[in-house]
Amino acid sequence: MSKILPALLAATALTFSTAAQAQTGNTANARRAMPAPVAPDPKVAALRDAALKDDVAWDIVEGITTEIGPRPDGSEAEGRAREWAVAKLKKLGFKNVRIEPYDLNNIWERGVETAEVVSPFPQPLRLTALGNSGATPAEGLTAPIVYFETVNDLMLAPEGSLKGKIAFVSNAMQATQDGSGYGSNGIARFLGPNLAAKKGAAAIVIRSIGTDRGRGPHAGGTNFEPGVAPIPAAALSVADAENLERIVKRGKTVTLHLTLTPKFVGTRTSGNVVAEVPGTDPKAGIITIGGHLDSWDLGTGAIDDGAGIAITTAAAKRLMDAGRHRRTIRVVWFGDEETGGWGGIAYAKAHADERHALAAESDSGADNVWKVSTNFPESAKAVGDRIAVALAPIGVVRGREDVHGGTDVGPTLALGVAGIDLHQSALRYFDWHHTPEDTLDRIDPEQLRQNVAAWTAMLATVADAPEEIGPVPAKP
Amino acid sequence: MSKILPALLAATALTFSTAAQAQTGNTANARRAMPAPVAPDPKVAALRDAALKDDVAWDIVEGITTEIGPRPDGSEAEGRAREWAVAKLKKLGFKNVRIEPYDLNNIWERGVETAEVVSPFPQPLRLTALGNSGATPAEGLTAPIVYFETVNDLMLAPEGSLKGKIAFVSNAMQATQDGSGYGSNGIARFLGPNLAAKKGAAAIVIRSIGTDRGRGPHAGGTNFEPGVAPIPAAALSVADAENLERIVKRGKTVTLHLTLTPKFVGTRTSGNVVAEVPGTDPKAGIITIGGHLDSWDLGTGAIDDGAGIAITTAAAKRLMDAGRHRRTIRVVWFGDEETGGWGGIAYAKAHADERHALAAESDSGADNVWKVSTNFPESAKAVGDRIAVALAPIGVVRGREDVHGGTDVGPTLALGVAGIDLHQSALRYFDWHHTPEDTLDRIDPEQLRQNVAAWTAMLATVADAPEEIGPVPAKP
Repeated sequence: MSKILPALLAATALTFSTAAQAQTGNTANARRAMPAPVAPDPKVAALRDAALKDDVAWDIVEGITTEIGPRPDGSEAEGRAREWAVAKLKKLGFKNVRIEPYDLNNIWERGVETAEVVSPFPQPLRLTALGNSGATPAEGLTAPIVYFETVNDLMLAPEGSLKGKIAFVSNAMQATQDGSGYGSNGIARFLGPNLAAKKGAAAIVIRSIGTDRGRGPHAGGTNFEPGVAPIPAAALSVADAENLERIVKRGKTVTLHLTLTPKFVGTRTSGNVVAEVPGTDPKAGIITIGGHLDSWDLGTGAIDDGAGIAITTAAAKRLMDAGRHRRTIRVVWFGDEETGGWGGIAYAKAHADERHALAAESDSGADNVWKVSTNFPESAKAVGDRIAVALAPIGVVRGREDVHGGTDVGPTLALGVAGIDLHQSALRYFDWHHTPEDTLDRIDPEQLRQNVAAWTAMLATVADAPEEIGPVPAKP
Repeated sequence: MSKILPALLAATALTFSTAAQAQTGNTANARRAMPAPVAPDPKVAALRDAALKDDVAWDIVEGITTEIGPRPDGSEAEGRAREWAVAKLKKLGFKNVRIEPYDLNNIWERGVETAEVVSPFPQPLRLTALGNSGATPAEGLTAPIVYFETVNDLMLAPEGSLKGKIAFVSNAMQATQDGSGYGSNGIARFLGPNLAAKKGAAAIVIRSIGTDRGRGPHAGGTNFEPGVAPIPAAALSVADAENLERIVKRGKTVTLHLTLTPKFVGTRTSGNVVAEVPGTDPKAGIITIGGHLDSWDLGTGAIDDGAGIAITTAAAKRLMDAGRHRRTIRVVWFGDEETGGWGGIAYAKAHADERHALAAESDSGADNVWKVSTNFPESAKAVGDRIAVALAPIGVVRGREDVHGGTDVGPTLALGVAGIDLHQSALRYFDWHHTPEDTLDRIDPEQLRQNVAAWTAMLATVADAPEEIGPVPAKP
């Protein structure tokens, strides 16, 4: 079967003829739609295949991880990263390269973070405070734990039942190609601390939202609703959470000593770095693509999201080097993504009056793109079909689900801009996401190149599409 | 080809007949020796195969890692581990269970350990102090680094050329099944700091002696010769060492800030835990087997060496449960191995007057035994042949090299006791050795059981061997 067929089948337009039914002898297939064939564009195919030899993306992600390293939001390192970005984007030949600064309020900074089992089996545990976690006293707090296998169990705990105790939620995330485990298991981190605080808990520790089996805890933000005082909240490494679970299952009261001393340090400056490949038709709408420049502090921000800025920038450069196109391509290295998505919000606000044809981001690492989803308006549906045909030869299937976008371009999509999701395989991503292990060596150069090829083919298709790509219904 | 053949071929006794040469048509094979066939012992085979379903070893290593965790030499946790060991060994039914205490001098304790690149690319680095490392001032020291790709390059550095500088040795260890990379690459840790100190270095950082690509640095001891003042010495994680190498290769002077505050805290008590399965013939000599109870502090001591005490104890229990045997089997959970091997030295000293038939240890993790080496005296050579035949069906080849023993039984072997090496595959071992990642989840229960089966078959063969197993030439 040709690699293109699944994409065609998914494009659902015409039903099989009776002759086709007889041929397959499968009545279920008869209910599938037979799309109109789409001729591959040889220019797009040539750009795509040349991108499979790309070195620019590696150069960017190797550079930012080596010459900057971790770049938490509002930090001095994030500032250096912006300067680095401007220099790099100018050197690559982009136009209108600039920083668009904005203020970040309530910057949260990590402090001491240690924990020990006090009884029955004294030993240290490895954990990391969640973003926006409250602090323990400087000398720490000592309290028994209440064990919850899942967030659901925590929800069922009676009000006040956690008073003076440390909630321990050990829900285990599974690896999935589409990363859906993050959403469903991530609520332990996103919502668990607020929930535990409302039930009176002194603190909460969760099993890291990750799919590895290692000692590197997974950082990440949490939030407390207005009026709920933040409690100390931390993620144990998966190995430590499993050990603590084994200790709990011995049946004795388990007491922890927990020291977390993060603090809020006020307002700092952050910023988006913007660069352009000008198009020939200013009325055709801008294509905004990118990833985020900020990173958590424990790793060096290679897969999250050095890879995303590298992939999208390398693809845009390939379009630039191939000559002028109809639409302007704007590459954005978004500032804050990790602590509230304020970079994407600032971008959408600053550029709300511009006409955008498309916005898309890369922010799930550097493993292969395996699926593409689009939500082009009816007038431009054929653009999506051409993208699917262009991507099929490099192993990308067409998805039927709605476009999700992501934290960076979400606020722009919410204004009614069409989006496209080039889904990356998340099977390995959450092994290292937000951990000390998010370093350059986790990136497979071959898969990084496949990403550049996918983005190049997508951009080449959209940049010169003769169709009007009008607004789509604004998201709620 | 039968699984037994390689073992037989390695046992070298008779050359092929002319008929055999003609059959194979391979004259090289004609120079191989054809051993006398050895009838497998069905009792040994039955014990071995039953051990492939063992649960005792898992129970021990799960227990010690969960209920004790890290147990550094001379620590309060090591003391609790000894009490745990006594209770566990008694519960398993061993006789004469006791602690044999000894003093440990010059106990070294880890302190603060942080490092940052100051210039040209400021960012944190992950490292851990080497055992016996000197300390920096409390506020740390700042100095440029001098890069050496290998220890050989460090050796070639002129005397005094490192004055006021931090040596950085980045020699990369390769994974090998026999673990030989540890010896050849380990010299960067064993000898590098002493060498750098003698050349005037202010400090030394090395690439971890490990085969992973992670952020967990590999701890381990180093030594300074008398008269050489210890300098601060630490191992960078492999990922950090590779990043530092990339930074060095940008060609600018690289300055580090290094804070290491370990200290020597004097004398502490350590001890070996001893348990026995009494034999019927006290004159036939004791079989001493075991592993070490102590561990480095960063992990929970699962593969190093919870597995070793678990494997050898589970095998001894199988012999005990099978009825009485000729020779006494003594299981030793050695105390200090990691910081000088003082447990093995204390054992050899305390038991020098006893007759030992054999001493062997398990201390390379929990992956499959793949090779067996023996050094039985001429009078007992056949015992080795029978062991090889008993182990071949579970995938063990016979090695021709001399017995190495290890740190725990080395001092006993040095007295002229025969040894046996059941080599475990070290292909994964040095990914986690001495790191935070040395935790229970690194142990594959099936491979752990294969180890128990190998040790059971070996013990069953030796315990009832009718041959005298006399002394071998003492090692130099």
